[in-house]
Amino acid sequence: VKTVCIAGVGLIGGSFALALRKAGFTGRIIGASSPQTIAKALALGVIDDGLPLAEAAAQVDCVYLAQPIQGILDTIREIDAWVRPGTLITDAGSTKGAIVVLANEKIRRGRFVGGHPMAGKETRGVEGAAADLFVDRPYVLTSPDTEIEEWIGKIGARLVRLSAEEHDALVARSSHVPQLASTALAALIDEHAAQVAGPGALDMTRLALSSYEIWRDILATNPEAIDKALGAYIAKLEEIRRDLRNSALKSHFESGAHGAERLRKR
Amino acid sequence: VKTVCIAGVGLIGGSFALALRKAGFTGRIIGASSPQTIAKALALGVIDDGLPLAEAAAQVDCVYLAQPIQGILDTIREIDAWVRPGTLITDAGSTKGAIVVLANEKIRRGRFVGGHPMAGKETRGVEGAAADLFVDRPYVLTSPDTEIEEWIGKIGARLVRLSAEEHDALVARSSHVPQLASTALAALIDEHAAQVAGPGALDMTRLALSSYEIWRDILATNPEAIDKALGAYIAKLEEIRRDLRNSALKSHFESGAHGAERLRKR
Repeated sequence: VKTVCIAGVGLIGGSFALALRKAGFTGRIIGASSPQTIAKALALGVIDDGLPLAEAAAQVDCVYLAQPIQGILDTIREIDAWVRPGTLITDAGSTKGAIVVLANEKIRRGRFVGGHPMAGKETRGVEGAAADLFVDRPYVLTSPDTEIEEWIGKIGARLVRLSAEEHDALVARSSHVPQLASTALAALIDEHAAQVAGPGALDMTRLALSSYEIWRDILATNPEAIDKALGAYIAKLEEIRRDLRNSALKSHFESGAHGAERLRKR
Repeated sequence: VKTVCIAGVGLIGGSFALALRKAGFTGRIIGASSPQTIAKALALGVIDDGLPLAEAAAQVDCVYLAQPIQGILDTIREIDAWVRPGTLITDAGSTKGAIVVLANEKIRRGRFVGGHPMAGKETRGVEGAAADLFVDRPYVLTSPDTEIEEWIGKIGARLVRLSAEEHDALVARSSHVPQLASTALAALIDEHAAQVAGPGALDMTRLALSSYEIWRDILATNPEAIDKALGAYIAKLEEIRRDLRNSALKSHFESGAHGAERLRKR
């Protein structure tokens, strides 16, 4: 990879550009985004140039799709006509099934590798972009590709190989259900309950502040896996409810503590 | 109140002693706790003296019960015989119904005021005690009492007056269900899901690391309110599950964000 186009120069796309540069990438990095975003990204030194996507895609070895999921899907419908044969096309969408199925159908001249960097922070947009955003974070790829795998290693991320289906089933449990669990909990906190809420309630409702616009696309492209994972969560809550007055409650606390420790030991 | 006995010199009891001192309390503060805890509390300057509870209770104007809930219940069964008439007895237990019912039955010579300071931190024990633990935190009292209300104001806490039943119904929603929601979620995070977990999963599983020993007593003394609140939570999750594929999902996100903001605006 000698030249890259970042489609969608937000937090993830901008951070990928900065991370590549920090890892020693010396080629041209072209951004394709709204005029305002391109102006900001140029001012921040995140990209070398801004061009319309069709024009940029024709000039590079790699197109990195970092738009919202719907934007990624829209781009995949069109991009194959724009790129040179063999161009690496990869994405950073939070769900993989719908994207990979569409890409397998539409992308013939380019080669597509589905990706999902498990990174983020509260500041959105290119203003929040940081070269170290991916360091020590999982980076999922849905098919093997030595070129992109090498860059994932160089930017300090932890490569995780999963099929699109495996990815979507796992993130339903590790990310999508936690979001919905927080939203449901926060929806039940009225003024009276807020009066006596402690620090635990703050932890448990932080995700509920997330933007619906982002989650709409995520949930819409992974409903089967989320339905299943949400069903398992509700079943576990019903078990705990049944055991509120008996000693089996202890084993629920133990398996919860075990799961929480596992997350912290990775 | 000129002299105080703290029964259970842990994080809460120790912090109450330090907070009283900082707020200008000049009387004697006697601790009643295990010999190891008394030694630590004396070394840290948290208490002036350590005595067996029966002996301490006979010498003070106020007994502050800061043991685990079962310890508070055990003490309430015996303490009335030890105190001088009119002694203020108050507690810091996390549930109020069982404690207040028992106190109303057993405490005749002393006067009982149920209490719950909504404060805590990760470091437990007297080692974590801090004079500012209650600052800006809610402090629930289940009956009016000018003396204890005055000290709650002086230590910087926010007085909230609630009946024991109101308190238990509200904390079921703001504290007990969040705990169980975290435990259930963490119990479902296996090694595979842990691989792709992001910062949201960490937030949502922090409470799952809490000690079962503390929660056993809390849950055992508030099962009806928790059962009801957990039922409401499960019903909300089922609503969201039903709406995963339709536009009503937006209103769930909006009411979740609204609840989360309400908690942060207090």
